[in-house]
Amino acid sequence: MERTHRERVVITAVHHLRARGVTGTGLRPLVADAGAPWGSFAHYFPGGKDQVVCEALDWAGAFAASIVTRYVETARRPTALGLWHAVVTWWVDDLTRHNFALGCPVAAAIADSAEGSEPIRSAAAAAMQTWRAPIRDGLVGLSFTRRDADELSTVLLAGLAGGIILARAERNVAPLRVVERRLRPLLVR
Amino acid sequence: MERTHRERVVITAVHHLRARGVTGTGLRPLVADAGAPWGSFAHYFPGGKDQVVCEALDWAGAFAASIVTRYVETARRPTALGLWHAVVTWWVDDLTRHNFALGCPVAAAIADSAEGSEPIRSAAAAAMQTWRAPIRDGLVGLSFTRRDADELSTVLLAGLAGGIILARAERNVAPLRVVERRLRPLLVR
Repeated sequence: MERTHRERVVITAVHHLRARGVTGTGLRPLVADAGAPWGSFAHYFPGGKDQVVCEALDWAGAFAASIVTRYVETARRPTALGLWHAVVTWWVDDLTRHNFALGCPVAAAIADSAEGSEPIRSAAAAAMQTWRAPIRDGLVGLSFTRRDADELSTVLLAGLAGGIILARAERNVAPLRVVERRLRPLLVR
Repeated sequence: MERTHRERVVITAVHHLRARGVTGTGLRPLVADAGAPWGSFAHYFPGGKDQVVCEALDWAGAFAASIVTRYVETARRPTALGLWHAVVTWWVDDLTRHNFALGCPVAAAIADSAEGSEPIRSAAAAAMQTWRAPIRDGLVGLSFTRRDADELSTVLLAGLAGGIILARAERNVAPLRVVERRLRPLLVR
């Protein structure tokens, strides 16, 4: 039970980061939304807000990576275009389902806290690498050179992070679909 | 004098947004950093924080657009690759000069406030369009079709916004340079 409360706080923190960033994430509303007793927070997270935010970023990076890995492992015949489509489609569906209320938690943390908190910047950088690794490795497995895979995974991640921002600004998934379509030629070998 | 104070508050707000987002921007530190008397704030900005943030986003959109326009108007022989290089280089220099402390104010506002404030979301969307317009028009002037120019300007903006986030996460301009190089083929006709 204690474990469940703790995990729920971390997962709820991911949602709060996605909706309003690190600075906008208040500990009391977070713990309340997670359905955890307020008194337990200091016990679970002796490092306070930085700790829970860093754990939320770790969780988000691993979750994003799992979407990539699932595609690579379950597609009948994985391709670079299929991988890219799977990742973009997850975001298109997610943005639509939540009416554009939730963006990328890692991008949000970098935007408001990369300068103010070195632990958060560092956790955000690690989360981006956790997300990028299976994209890069997937491309290597699909016969891209290591350098191409390294650089292309960076470009896909940048296009995705930027496309999510444009989609939320316009409350329309069109920019993300444009990014998907226009980057496809980079993935054809 | 009154005008100068007012403008300084708006420009200082752009800096605060770039470093710590909308939620992290406090009005008293903002007005103090701008060197304006606190008592004047309500006079200049009767709409309060939303108003000054929206004006800062307008200002930032116009400033970003001016970098594009300056390239198109002053380059001896403007090209799509030259335009893209000029925009990326402005950001590489700016990130380096400020030691990665300052990101894109529009992306920051979308990340923490697109959901919480409709005026801010709307101003951020308008700022993105203000930034994108001269890129799109520049590409049309360089003989790209209107549709290609429209879509490619979206892709360049997304790549830039995402690349800035990755660069700030890693405190390294390399991701932005990778994005620049890898998107170049899209601009060769």
